[in-house]
Amino acid sequence: MQKNEIWDFFVIGGGPTGIAASIYASRFMLKTMVVGKDIGGLIVRTHLVENYPGFVSCSGQELMDAFLKHAASMKVPVVEDEVLAVTKIKPYLFEIRCGEKTYHAKTVLFATGSKWRPLDVPGYKEFYAKGVSHCATCDAAFFKDKVVAVVGGSDSAAKEALLLTQFARKVYIVYRGEEIHPEPINGARVKASKKIEIISKTNIIEIKGIKTVTGAVLDKPYKGTKELPVDGIFIEIGHIPLSDLAVSVGVAVNDKREIMVGPDSRTNCAGIYAAGDITQSPYRQVITGAAEGVIAAFSAYEDLGKQ
Amino acid sequence: MQKNEIWDFFVIGGGPTGIAASIYASRFMLKTMVVGKDIGGLIVRTHLVENYPGFVSCSGQELMDAFLKHAASMKVPVVEDEVLAVTKIKPYLFEIRCGEKTYHAKTVLFATGSKWRPLDVPGYKEFYAKGVSHCATCDAAFFKDKVVAVVGGSDSAAKEALLLTQFARKVYIVYRGEEIHPEPINGARVKASKKIEIISKTNIIEIKGIKTVTGAVLDKPYKGTKELPVDGIFIEIGHIPLSDLAVSVGVAVNDKREIMVGPDSRTNCAGIYAAGDITQSPYRQVITGAAEGVIAAFSAYEDLGKQ
Repeated sequence: MQKNEIWDFFVIGGGPTGIAASIYASRFMLKTMVVGKDIGGLIVRTHLVENYPGFVSCSGQELMDAFLKHAASMKVPVVEDEVLAVTKIKPYLFEIRCGEKTYHAKTVLFATGSKWRPLDVPGYKEFYAKGVSHCATCDAAFFKDKVVAVVGGSDSAAKEALLLTQFARKVYIVYRGEEIHPEPINGARVKASKKIEIISKTNIIEIKGIKTVTGAVLDKPYKGTKELPVDGIFIEIGHIPLSDLAVSVGVAVNDKREIMVGPDSRTNCAGIYAAGDITQSPYRQVITGAAEGVIAAFSAYEDLGKQ
Repeated sequence: MQKNEIWDFFVIGGGPTGIAASIYASRFMLKTMVVGKDIGGLIVRTHLVENYPGFVSCSGQELMDAFLKHAASMKVPVVEDEVLAVTKIKPYLFEIRCGEKTYHAKTVLFATGSKWRPLDVPGYKEFYAKGVSHCATCDAAFFKDKVVAVVGGSDSAAKEALLLTQFARKVYIVYRGEEIHPEPINGARVKASKKIEIISKTNIIEIKGIKTVTGAVLDKPYKGTKELPVDGIFIEIGHIPLSDLAVSVGVAVNDKREIMVGPDSRTNCAGIYAAGDITQSPYRQVITGAAEGVIAAFSAYEDLGKQ
C-alpha cells in the first residue's frame, strides 16, 4: 500500500452486508477495502442461522467464516479497526480516520448495522456482564441449571430463550406486549418447551443483585409477587442503528436514526451508500442486507464510471 | 395431501428466487409449495458462480443443489411440472392448473424468471441444437478444437466465451456495439485470453450450414470478408421475462413485459407477488433475486395475517 493510496470503495462495517458488498465491488475491479470494529458483525453472536439460502443450518460464526473466506478469495483487505471520523474533502473524495490509521476513498458504504438497545432501568449498568447480557450465544453456558429471564417479544427474544433452555432449568420471557411475535417456527418451539414461561404485559423496572444478579422487580405482580428471582437477565429489546458517523458527514436519517436509502442503496450524499440494519429497510435478514450491500456496489461502480 | 387442499403460498418457478422464497415462507409456517418447469432455473446452465456470498466458487448446479437441500430440510414440496393457467377465483384464492394436476392457493409468487432471447436471423431455427446454442455449459464440450462465435457483449457473453476457450481453438465474440461490457474481472480474463477475438460493431445476419453450422454471414466485412467460418454459434443477447401467465391474471408489466413490483415484491394484484428476473429489478443476480423472493414471503405472510 502506498502512502497516498485512494480506495475506490471503502466499506465501513465487517458484517454480512459489508462483506457481500466488498465481494461484488472487487469483482467490479474497484479497489475495495473493509474496516470494521467487529469483523463478522452481530450475526456471529447468533448460535443458529437457518435462513440464509444455501446454508441449511449453521452458526452465525460459520456463516461469516464463509463470507470472509469469499472476500479473502477476492483479496479484499478486511481490517479490524474503529472508524472515528469520516470527512468529505471534495466530491468523490472522503477521508476516513480510524484508530490505527487514516484512509482516503472515492466512495464510502456505511454498513455498520446496529447495536443492542440497553434496558434503561436501575441495575442494568451495575450488573452488566454480571448476570445481565445481550447474548445467549456468548453467555448461556454460564447459566447451567439456573433460572434466567429474557426481556422482549421478538424472534430474537424467542431464539435466545430457546438456546437458554439447553442450559438453564427455567427460562422466563418477560414481554411488555400482549403476545410475543417470533417467526412462527420459533413460536411453535417456544410453545413446545416445558422450560419456558411467558410473563406478558409486564416490564422489568429494576435489576437487583449481590455481586451478580439475584432478581428482577416487575411493574405488576406475577403469581402474587413483583419480585422475580433470576440468576441472569438477557435483554432482547431491539437495536439502535449505528448511524452517528454517517449523520456527521451529512447523510439523512429518519426519526429512528435509520439512514434513508433508495432501492439503489444510495443516500442523499453523492458517493455515500448505506445498506443493511443501519438503513430504514425493515427486513433485517442476512440475505436482504447482503443484497442491499451488493446493490450499493453496483451503484458505486456506476457512479464512479461517470466521474 | 388432501384433495381440496389450499396452499398458503404457491411459488411458480424453481430457480433460486422461488426456492429462497419457499424457505422463508415455510419458516413463517405458511403451507408452501413450488412448481417449476425447470427445477433449478437457468442458473444451473451456468458453469461458474463466484458471486453468491458464502459460496466462493461453484457451478450453478452445485449452488442450486444447496438451495434445494435447504427447501427439502423445510419439507417444501418442489414439483417439476408446467403451469398452464392461473385463475383468480375470489380475493386470496387462486387456481393453478398444471400439466399434471390443478392446485389452489391463497397467494401466488411468480418467480419464473426469463428465457434466452433468440437471434432473429435465417438459419437460427434450422440449426438450433445443430451448432446453434444458448448454453456453453451444456454444449461447449462438443466443440473441442473447433471454431465458435459468441453473439453478445454482456457479462454472460464474456463468461460463455471464456468457458468455450477451454474446448475450442478459437472463440469470436461478435457484438453489435462498440465495446463489450462484462464485469471487469471477466473483461480482464477475456483480454488475457489468446483464443478470443472480438468483432465489434457487427451483426450476424445469417447462419449457414450443411446438416450442422458451417459459418455466419456478417453485416460488414471482417478481415476482408463477410463470411465467418465457424462450427458453433452461442447466442447471448439477453433474456425475455416469462410473464405471460402473470399478465393473463391481471398483473401489470412494463414495455419490456417485466412485472412491475414495489420494494415489497407486491404486484398490482392483491395476493400476487413477483421476484427475480421476471420483474423490472435491474440487478439479475442470485443474491438479489433470492432477497426479492424472501421479501415476497414477508409480504404474503403479512397479507395473509390480515385475512
